[in-house]
Amino acid sequence: MRNWEFAKGHGTMNDFVLLKDRTNSTELSPQDVRYLCDRRAGIGGDGVIRAVWAKYMPSWTGDPNMWFMDYRNSDGSVAEMCGNGLRVFGHFLLDENLADGPDIQVATRAGQRDVAEMNDELFRAGIGHVQVASQPTHVSLDGVEYEATTVDVGNPHAVVFLPADVDLESLDLSHPPRFDTRVYPAGTNIEFVRVHSDRSLSMRVFERGSGETMSCGTGVVATAAAQGARLGEQGRFGVDVPGGHLEVELDDSMAHLTGPAVIVAHGSVVLPDEAAR
Amino acid sequence: MRNWEFAKGHGTMNDFVLLKDRTNSTELSPQDVRYLCDRRAGIGGDGVIRAVWAKYMPSWTGDPNMWFMDYRNSDGSVAEMCGNGLRVFGHFLLDENLADGPDIQVATRAGQRDVAEMNDELFRAGIGHVQVASQPTHVSLDGVEYEATTVDVGNPHAVVFLPADVDLESLDLSHPPRFDTRVYPAGTNIEFVRVHSDRSLSMRVFERGSGETMSCGTGVVATAAAQGARLGEQGRFGVDVPGGHLEVELDDSMAHLTGPAVIVAHGSVVLPDEAAR
Repeated sequence: MRNWEFAKGHGTMNDFVLLKDRTNSTELSPQDVRYLCDRRAGIGGDGVIRAVWAKYMPSWTGDPNMWFMDYRNSDGSVAEMCGNGLRVFGHFLLDENLADGPDIQVATRAGQRDVAEMNDELFRAGIGHVQVASQPTHVSLDGVEYEATTVDVGNPHAVVFLPADVDLESLDLSHPPRFDTRVYPAGTNIEFVRVHSDRSLSMRVFERGSGETMSCGTGVVATAAAQGARLGEQGRFGVDVPGGHLEVELDDSMAHLTGPAVIVAHGSVVLPDEAAR
Repeated sequence: MRNWEFAKGHGTMNDFVLLKDRTNSTELSPQDVRYLCDRRAGIGGDGVIRAVWAKYMPSWTGDPNMWFMDYRNSDGSVAEMCGNGLRVFGHFLLDENLADGPDIQVATRAGQRDVAEMNDELFRAGIGHVQVASQPTHVSLDGVEYEATTVDVGNPHAVVFLPADVDLESLDLSHPPRFDTRVYPAGTNIEFVRVHSDRSLSMRVFERGSGETMSCGTGVVATAAAQGARLGEQGRFGVDVPGGHLEVELDDSMAHLTGPAVIVAHGSVVLPDEAAR
């Protein structure tokens, strides 16, 4: 049996099991991740985030004096970054007195990122560089074809601005929309968007490999960027997702995402031994 | 903000948040229960079980010197008892040094129950008295009608023994089966059963008010009792459910259910104040 300390947190209902392992001395296997993320047999989460001091991460070539965000998907696979997870990771570092706030530099597999505490449960994080394609593509759902904007936020997105006669809430996202596999050979996340006003949007997302989720940080950024491209403007956009409200700031360099990051619980979890599985 | 100690546990994937409140001094509101059971914004569970010393429960008229199992459904409503929860409650009492094992007497809203530790994670619990109706009823699923046995385990059950040509695994339980509302005016739990041999069964369950679940303690007992009635025998039955394996013992008095009860984690959780919701 192994006994690990953990925290549980979420950002707009995207939830994580957080672990501290300063010296990278704990082996975190895919089975461990799946166990921790199991919502009935384990703790439950969309992913596990392990905090490792960057100099102990052999793959990290940047400044060694920061915390590395080792993100794993609930299926045990390694992921580069997670926008909602980055805010929760920032809150975790402050909560555990691992970093001084309000501004924290974090190492991730996608490079260095900044995260800052705005107030108690509101955090602002640098998500990445955004590229909006000029050429439209198409997505179809339930036999209806929609025009979509291709956006790259480090991962691929197809953003659909819904026609006025299509209700966002009544879309059936229980099955995957279809997309052009020539444009998205590795699949894509797909956002369906209702525009309330130029800078106020509502969005639902079908995540590649997961299905519909309550929130997707990069999807929110992609949505704002696609709307910015329509307007020919940058600046701030508000995006409602099923899990809450997020704000995006766009400029020529790094897109920033501001939203809640909540630490719900702290505890210790007993992991079964490898041999026992 | 309120900070509560909790444990998280499960029995055949039926999972619970466990709280200790010896003197019944903490108000546990339906909102609190819903928050604790929220799998993304809270801890996550099918229900909350609060341990209160029985003499502090005004409704309890039995022996005051035992622990009362205050069970709440994840929607915040009060429930009488939960078969899988009773085993996990027993494990929790031992784990927290609140009771001496292996045999523990527990107070519940359904009356006094016994639970015993068999070994580290295997517990045996008295579920209740079982009554099998002699008159068959009918259940239909996807337009196919099946004969069913009505069983009362303190709550209602309709047990369907599947014909040999119907595959248990391929049944679509994403929507509710239909039943005779004259037989079940308050609804019913419905079990679909494959008989492997006289005393070895597999079962899937559609729980009243919840849909298909990984396990249902009373449903497992009802399944064994219906099979016992077919055989005209009592004794031991093994029942596989999607969440694991359970053993039922039937005699003229109390049915007993034996199966795993796992305590996964301990921790402290921050609950939002009433006013903040």
